[in-house]
Amino acid sequence: MRVLFEHVTALTMDPALPELKNGFVAVEGAKIAYAGYARPAGEFDRVIDCTNKIMLPGLVNAHTHVPMSLLRGYGGGCDLHTWLNQYIFPAEAKLDPRCVAAGTALGLAEMIASGTTCINDMYMYTETIAQTVLDAGLSANLSCGGVYFGAPEDFSPETCNDCQNTKALRENWHGAGDGQILVDASIHAEYTSNGPLWQWVADYARQYNLGMHVHISETRSEHENCLQKYGKTPIALFDQYGVWERGGAAAHCVWVADNDMELMEKRSITAVHNPMSNLKLASGVARVPQLLEAGVNVALGTDGVASNNSHDLFEEIKLAAVLHKGVSGDPMAVSARQALAMATVNGAKALGRDTGVLAAGKIADIILLDASRPNLIPCHDLAENLVYSARGSDVCMNMARGRVIYENGTFLTLDLEKLRAEVEGYALPHIFGGND
Amino acid sequence: MRVLFEHVTALTMDPALPELKNGFVAVEGAKIAYAGYARPAGEFDRVIDCTNKIMLPGLVNAHTHVPMSLLRGYGGGCDLHTWLNQYIFPAEAKLDPRCVAAGTALGLAEMIASGTTCINDMYMYTETIAQTVLDAGLSANLSCGGVYFGAPEDFSPETCNDCQNTKALRENWHGAGDGQILVDASIHAEYTSNGPLWQWVADYARQYNLGMHVHISETRSEHENCLQKYGKTPIALFDQYGVWERGGAAAHCVWVADNDMELMEKRSITAVHNPMSNLKLASGVARVPQLLEAGVNVALGTDGVASNNSHDLFEEIKLAAVLHKGVSGDPMAVSARQALAMATVNGAKALGRDTGVLAAGKIADIILLDASRPNLIPCHDLAENLVYSARGSDVCMNMARGRVIYENGTFLTLDLEKLRAEVEGYALPHIFGGND
Repeated sequence: MRVLFEHVTALTMDPALPELKNGFVAVEGAKIAYAGYARPAGEFDRVIDCTNKIMLPGLVNAHTHVPMSLLRGYGGGCDLHTWLNQYIFPAEAKLDPRCVAAGTALGLAEMIASGTTCINDMYMYTETIAQTVLDAGLSANLSCGGVYFGAPEDFSPETCNDCQNTKALRENWHGAGDGQILVDASIHAEYTSNGPLWQWVADYARQYNLGMHVHISETRSEHENCLQKYGKTPIALFDQYGVWERGGAAAHCVWVADNDMELMEKRSITAVHNPMSNLKLASGVARVPQLLEAGVNVALGTDGVASNNSHDLFEEIKLAAVLHKGVSGDPMAVSARQALAMATVNGAKALGRDTGVLAAGKIADIILLDASRPNLIPCHDLAENLVYSARGSDVCMNMARGRVIYENGTFLTLDLEKLRAEVEGYALPHIFGGND
Repeated sequence: MRVLFEHVTALTMDPALPELKNGFVAVEGAKIAYAGYARPAGEFDRVIDCTNKIMLPGLVNAHTHVPMSLLRGYGGGCDLHTWLNQYIFPAEAKLDPRCVAAGTALGLAEMIASGTTCINDMYMYTETIAQTVLDAGLSANLSCGGVYFGAPEDFSPETCNDCQNTKALRENWHGAGDGQILVDASIHAEYTSNGPLWQWVADYARQYNLGMHVHISETRSEHENCLQKYGKTPIALFDQYGVWERGGAAAHCVWVADNDMELMEKRSITAVHNPMSNLKLASGVARVPQLLEAGVNVALGTDGVASNNSHDLFEEIKLAAVLHKGVSGDPMAVSARQALAMATVNGAKALGRDTGVLAAGKIADIILLDASRPNLIPCHDLAENLVYSARGSDVCMNMARGRVIYENGTFLTLDLEKLRAEVEGYALPHIFGGND
């Protein structure tokens, strides 16, 4: 399949050609073959006129728990302890693979319609998630979020569910769909496991050259309890075990210390900023300007929608760009272009993927926004409009790996009616009984 | 015109009947005739099936400068001083009534499509704004934002432009469209005027029983300079002149003191919270939980889109609900229902208008959201979904004063093509020359 986009206005995230105005982008198979001003030669299966559209690399949601879509808004308005223990955990205990498939497809629909082409997901029933993502057409790094509450001396990978799940996921899915699915090693968090699991995960990741996905210093108490228990911060503690040998995606990093930032830069650890979730759960405001200053790669995530409650990355982009200005008092903190980089090229780097940039050779993850809507008029500056004025709902086309999966409100890989019936007819009654 | 909404799921903001599930709402002329569970008798000109929709009172944007739509994203990425002096002020100096009409219509289109039915606007060429609003069908409180930079002893209302503009606006427009347009008295801010103007505005408002619209304590330096200059905060200073005799809408209130909050409660002054603008301009975070605790009426505004850059009040609702949780560390700070009240009934109170509530006798300002979209599924709680998951783009119908002005993407009072041509063909070249 060869596709030509013409009359392209784009923010490319490619330093060699940052903006295109009335240019061309050509796609061959799953890759971008060309981005520039000369009309590419040859025949195309489809030519897409991009007049009155804005093109951007598909967005990378670098921290998600996508099946939690089913819990959107559930138990909202409570304090954290009540919310987790009386609502979220009991509901999650009732999940089965069919629920997870429905919740994943629902979350992916929302993500696709708002411009996401690649996700970094940590959850349970991950093989079900993998199949659902494969069918939907996006790319995903998937991980099991290893937890181990037993005594360190009792640990055995043979009896640890998350070790076995990680092995099965890797064996069955790593690299599936020509790299569409990648499997990462993962520790849920410091406070939900201990040394032997961390060592196993680090060793397993080294053995198979896997990425790493961990929750880090999300809340003050988590960060301070770790310091008290181990005399080290979570970032430094995991470093001792070799968890960061190939970098990693460290979700949240709200409370990381200055020393952590140095180590993160040195080890190529990405801080995945989830500003909406961090505000909603009252976790605090990550020190993003300092992370950037320290040279740390910063990406963006929505987290699960039970604590957001939206999968629209354009909300995170805008929030990341305004929040740190307001909190620091510096109107230059986190520029529009920096926020866009977090949601595209920086996310790709975190996931070890060759996407997030519109340039020849990159994966053809491409979105178009409808620039004729009143909220995008006028356009004095492309990046400013994309960050502060665009909404996920302005996305009118989503191409993932060279395939159009969403166009003008129509999902081309998901059956929305069937999906709604599955969510409302099976998943919700299964989890919540007849009361919901 | 009699309209019946059936199968209504609604958050009414009426304490007597907070939620409707499969109920009825009837509209007669510009007013709501009924909201409840018994099907109203009689003939209707139109019956609207609200299955898979959510109904909410039309939103009140309690602080705007709507013609600034033309400056959306202009000069973004600069520090405040450069932004104002090198970009915004020179551009505003080139405005003429035709530009203002185009910019107003553009901003109103964006507001209408995202569920706003009533605005509180302060700008120049206000008679042009009045005519544009009247045609578009929303309600508006309009004011001139009085400035006076002369010496106090030289002040005369006869030679002060903003006094003359306020008089003309009141004489020609106050109450127009059966109350659709109301004219407020207004002081732009403490730092852009002095005593004789404040006295004139207070006296004029008293004479004609007008509302009041003022910028208050938006930045730290503004608040502290006022304290230094007058020994009083802006709220207390204006109180001396009788500015707050009939309450008022005090925009921003980021730096108001505890004593100010007491006075605000006593004088029925509304704090109009503009969280996005305050973050983007690095003004800070208003102490909204404390304002609520002090019993102050808190409403929401977008401010002008040059500092936002969006007129979508659903963004402000969500931000108001999450920001104070994150900054205070309290996950219960500003509930979903409190945030919705700010954008509806509290805004109506600030503007002295009988809207913002779905109940018999209220103005028929009503919006419908499409609840079948993936981002609104499932719905465990109506308020949680409306605040944390809904976006302005989910609005599928906007009825203002009993008249449907927007439905399923179509504007019924604005010609979007003509409007774009006017913005791009006249207003932008007029302001920015051929370079933009």
